[in-house]
Amino acid sequence: MAAWLLAINTLKIQPFKLPTLGPGDVRVRMKAVGICGSDVHYLKTLRCADFVVKEPMVIGHECAGIIEEVGSEVKSLVPGDRVALEPGISCWRCYHCKEGRYNLCPDMKFFATPPVHGSLANQVVHPADLCFKLPENVSLEEGAMCEPLSVGVHACRRANIGHETNVLIMGAGPIGLVTLLAARAFGAPRIVIVDVDDNRLSVAKEVGADETIKVSTSIQDVSKDVEQILKTMGGARVDVTFDCAGFNKTISTALSATRSGGRVCIVGMGHHEVTVPLTPAAAREVDLIGVFRYKNTWPLCLEFLSSGKIDVKPLITHRFGFSQQEVEEAFETSARGGSAIKVMFNL
Amino acid sequence: MAAWLLAINTLKIQPFKLPTLGPGDVRVRMKAVGICGSDVHYLKTLRCADFVVKEPMVIGHECAGIIEEVGSEVKSLVPGDRVALEPGISCWRCYHCKEGRYNLCPDMKFFATPPVHGSLANQVVHPADLCFKLPENVSLEEGAMCEPLSVGVHACRRANIGHETNVLIMGAGPIGLVTLLAARAFGAPRIVIVDVDDNRLSVAKEVGADETIKVSTSIQDVSKDVEQILKTMGGARVDVTFDCAGFNKTISTALSATRSGGRVCIVGMGHHEVTVPLTPAAAREVDLIGVFRYKNTWPLCLEFLSSGKIDVKPLITHRFGFSQQEVEEAFETSARGGSAIKVMFNL
Amino acid sequence: MAAWLLAINTLKIQPFKLPTLGPGDVRVRMKAVGICGSDVHYLKTLRCADFVVKEPMVIGHECAGIIEEVGSEVKSLVPGDRVALEPGISCWRCYHCKEGRYNLCPDMKFFATPPVHGSLANQVVHPADLCFKLPENVSLEEGAMCEPLSVGVHACRRANIGHETNVLIMGAGPIGLVTLLAARAFGAPRIVIVDVDDNRLSVAKEVGADETIKVSTSIQDVSKDVEQILKTMGGARVDVTFDCAGFNKTISTALSATRSGGRVCIVGMGHHEVTVPLTPAAAREVDLIGVFRYKNTWPLCLEFLSSGKIDVKPLITHRFGFSQQEVEEAFETSARGGSAIKVMFNL
Amino acid sequence: MAAWLLAINTLKIQPFKLPTLGPGDVRVRMKAVGICGSDVHYLKTLRCADFVVKEPMVIGHECAGIIEEVGSEVKSLVPGDRVALEPGISCWRCYHCKEGRYNLCPDMKFFATPPVHGSLANQVVHPADLCFKLPENVSLEEGAMCEPLSVGVHACRRANIGHETNVLIMGAGPIGLVTLLAARAFGAPRIVIVDVDDNRLSVAKEVGADETIKVSTSIQDVSKDVEQILKTMGGARVDVTFDCAGFNKTISTALSATRSGGRVCIVGMGHHEVTVPLTPAAAREVDLIGVFRYKNTWPLCLEFLSSGKIDVKPLITHRFGFSQQEVEEAFETSARGGSAIKVMFNL
Repeated sequence: MAAWLLAINTLKIQPFKLPTLGPGDVRVRMKAVGICGSDVHYLKTLRCADFVVKEPMVIGHECAGIIEEVGSEVKSLVPGDRVALEPGISCWRCYHCKEGRYNLCPDMKFFATPPVHGSLANQVVHPADLCFKLPENVSLEEGAMCEPLSVGVHACRRANIGHETNVLIMGAGPIGLVTLLAARAFGAPRIVIVDVDDNRLSVAKEVGADETIKVSTSIQDVSKDVEQILKTMGGARVDVTFDCAGFNKTISTALSATRSGGRVCIVGMGHHEVTVPLTPAAAREVDLIGVFRYKNTWPLCLEFLSSGKIDVKPLITHRFGFSQQEVEEAFETSARGGSAIKVMFNL
Repeated sequence: MAAWLLAINTLKIQPFKLPTLGPGDVRVRMKAVGICGSDVHYLKTLRCADFVVKEPMVIGHECAGIIEEVGSEVKSLVPGDRVALEPGISCWRCYHCKEGRYNLCPDMKFFATPPVHGSLANQVVHPADLCFKLPENVSLEEGAMCEPLSVGVHACRRANIGHETNVLIMGAGPIGLVTLLAARAFGAPRIVIVDVDDNRLSVAKEVGADETIKVSTSIQDVSKDVEQILKTMGGARVDVTFDCAGFNKTISTALSATRSGGRVCIVGMGHHEVTVPLTPAAAREVDLIGVFRYKNTWPLCLEFLSSGKIDVKPLITHRFGFSQQEVEEAFETSARGGSAIKVMFNL
Repeated sequence: MAAWLLAINTLKIQPFKLPTLGPGDVRVRMKAVGICGSDVHYLKTLRCADFVVKEPMVIGHECAGIIEEVGSEVKSLVPGDRVALEPGISCWRCYHCKEGRYNLCPDMKFFATPPVHGSLANQVVHPADLCFKLPENVSLEEGAMCEPLSVGVHACRRANIGHETNVLIMGAGPIGLVTLLAARAFGAPRIVIVDVDDNRLSVAKEVGADETIKVSTSIQDVSKDVEQILKTMGGARVDVTFDCAGFNKTISTALSATRSGGRVCIVGMGHHEVTVPLTPAAAREVDLIGVFRYKNTWPLCLEFLSSGKIDVKPLITHRFGFSQQEVEEAFETSARGGSAIKVMFNL
Repeated sequence: MAAWLLAINTLKIQPFKLPTLGPGDVRVRMKAVGICGSDVHYLKTLRCADFVVKEPMVIGHECAGIIEEVGSEVKSLVPGDRVALEPGISCWRCYHCKEGRYNLCPDMKFFATPPVHGSLANQVVHPADLCFKLPENVSLEEGAMCEPLSVGVHACRRANIGHETNVLIMGAGPIGLVTLLAARAFGAPRIVIVDVDDNRLSVAKEVGADETIKVSTSIQDVSKDVEQILKTMGGARVDVTFDCAGFNKTISTALSATRSGGRVCIVGMGHHEVTVPLTPAAAREVDLIGVFRYKNTWPLCLEFLSSGKIDVKPLITHRFGFSQQEVEEAFETSARGGSAIKVMFNL
């Protein structure tokens, strides 16, 4: 059995040997695969954070497809089932896995994180328990969107968003937008989103932000921005701020704008080292919450999509086929940014 | 009724008019009052954080005494009872008070926080529900120590310390030491404490640290320090780090040394703005927990003191009487630092 | 200043001396007051649980009105403001109040709980911090409904209802219905409700239940009922069951139907002693959660009503004026049950 | 490779084929195996709860031994290591496993739960991640005691025991005693234990109970017992009650004695159906917490044993060898109860 893959760096479609189907595995024909910023990053730099690509690697990890074959022990799925794939296989032996925080597993095997192959391929073999059957009214593209949406959902869970949590979001890029969608679905009564770009803010408004605020990139403006944010909240407290950017300015603004006893959730990666007024915020018991990927988010994402509480379709701005030319064009589109939010392959 | 007080700046004992005894209040003859760093700070600079002293103010807020008179509705206490005093009176009407986080009350009236008078006086009037009867085997001096100890206890509660939480403490000053005592009492199986000063470290060792590490103040040494810390933990994870210093270097070390999914608790105030590798830690779901004073800590402090789970006596290094000369000497001793940990007045 | 009241037992409108307005109080002209089952109970038996009526007492505690006068320290409200009233004044000195669970305060002064007067009167004096300003689009009747709705909201908070919690409700009486409304607003994806009465079930369906099940009162049918419930859930787990009835049969069904690791929340009072299969449920880590009144629920209720996430209007089935004759008729209507869900006075 | 086993019902030592050593497994030579009540139950009735023995089965699940061989992927252990064994292998694919509550896994393979063989054998093959290396100062017998102790530790975790939780324990049998040891180690400041048997109570006193109370079995005495319990608490609240018996009387006492807002934790199995005053307790927000086995308890048990915070040795009252005659005698001793608390085999 063979499949076609994109080798990193050379960005070529190549034959690829599928791993053997284990008793708990399924073989999935890929139908929809989205491009993530990390895919572009790997393509351009051959690395992402501490992970370095040393050999050709299939990229892609936002995906959905159709079951073609199931392993001998699989009872939950049958060929023909449409599924969304959770990309990480954890060890289930370590401290973190046993404690219920498998996203922190140091031995995680994750699509397109070297040296593990990703899912931008015709077919993949994956554990059945990481393949989630799509409800009838959820499309394969929406299934692929469960992955980026999961980041927002996990962030909302860690930050404990509910019907009494007024939310500020710093940054209206793809991560900011999925966090916005998730926060809305978790019930946040008031969501204000901040960015430097008018286009992004208008998309944010369209997909559900109550108010948007355009700011400068100047660190001098933090006080002024905070003042405007609080005014825009209309008397509501900022209970939780999601920093989806990771800059000195955004984190400084987040720390100052959030109410005493509130939480700042760091979702975006941004700079390694930041200069921020941490201790005054700590002295108001503003906690900083870290976020790494997600865990147990697919069922909830599918519930949100199926019930209509979340609509991810406006985020899919570009679609491409799976030819050499289209793949190149797709990555260029994604890298260019601009109006592109999510670039999706239909295989 | 009159009492004697120390007017800030002039540091003079002066007559002072006690407030009227309300139906829920008690009048307490002060017997033991400790000096806190903030008292010294007020004395020298007439301010602490955003609080500015504009008129003569009684200082002091770590105290215990003997009930002399009780208000008409007080049933829990009688004259002669020995009590430790919780210094803050919250409003019980605001969001924070009703949610059970009264320490965040914006209308808090707190001993020796301008314009509220403190407790370094012969007598004070205070609400009965903030005066906690001392068990027979707890001395008045130990009662006064409930206040600094409460900072450590509240930090341990917020950081969720228990029998599986290995602890690193950055800084072996008074705050570091009470945090150490509290963490030990909460069951932390392994506690390593780091400082730049040999004296402080030897006190820390004496009062219960498993290991001490002397480090430099150079930010260049963070990696080396982290390596040594992890080695000293002997295979145990650093589940929680308390930063009791507040410098770039200590927070950077804390963020790097703490395990994925662990917590860094910011107890010390230190610098306003810090430059630290925040995002790599957030991406390992290391959360930062802020701490402001304490809430509901006196009963637990008294339980710890009475049961012998905590011994605060080694922290009381100097004792003074209440004459003009001794008071001046006491503040000088406390300000000088050196071998002085806690300076206590016996009235 | 005088007002008119209903003396218990004699059910007569009588002059009534308003308490003095304290500095933190407001005087409210009552506009909408609902009848609760406990009001009817007091009227008929002069007692409710351990509370016994010994002297004439104003009844009523579900209410909203218009501010007429504010105390000297009140800054949050002005005359003319429309407000909903939280009926209980807690002591803020006891263990429970300080821990943030003021609903458990043993010294609670609660409208129409002997010997405290209630709010079925032209005017009441009440602390300003327990009077919540109505958003423009929330009516006074809806404001009065915050009280019964708060029971459902508090139950949902204690049972931790969210977007992944499938819910079973035993009993479609007034308590079952407000719990249904609240669970829906908290995001429960699937809610099945069970009762013996077709009328109640059709109301439940109308206000948002996904499925309704009619059952018998026979304890023999528990297994059969559980089977039907699980079938009706359509593959979803019962994560939380609210028992809003309190009978052997309903609790037994709740304990058996709820998934391992789930929660049964006891909202209805029902029988004092019950015979139920408790240990098999405990051995599946099904926890039982108790509920007493509510705390900090008014802001959330008003957010739910204002945003349209909850519509309580269908529950208000009967309206009466405040004459002697109408009051008698109103209580008879409420006591009769039948199609009456909430009987409301417009003053 | 062969080993000897005890076939249930016939209680005979028989040859037994060890399963193949997988890459993540270890082969352990058993050295200490304790007898649990469930073992005796299986022996006498061939069933326990819903589990029925249909074929000869090795019994026993409280055990420790020495590693003889390790699978190809095992890095954490080497031959010669002394280990305590956690008996249950969960699926890591189901909802419960992924949520971090693997003890609720419906596909759990658990020593001596039909049809899975137990560990009263010369050797067993077991996953390496369920074998916990003993600290030098913890004996193999103490290692075997981690299993019953885990029940107490898990109960204390679920009931959230700490330094402010005063504890009442109903029942001083083996489960009551391990719960007592665990509650003491978790810091409970005051522990009162209740039983009908003087011998058991005197053991409880010896291993750390503050006070013991002897009661009758008569349900009429509940009020009287509660009164005595509260008096014995000496003014302290009963924050948590562990019911380690499961009778109408013990649960009724637990529900009445526990403070408003407290917790009753059902540890013992006892009767299937109970008649208890559930609703009055629920109306004081007394929650009932269920307990099933344990999860992630071995590291903490070993920390408690190694640090001396728990001493299980007084619970080991009888020791036997592994001959046919001694095995029979051991089971008779355990079944007889009386002074026997824990009967241990040394292999």
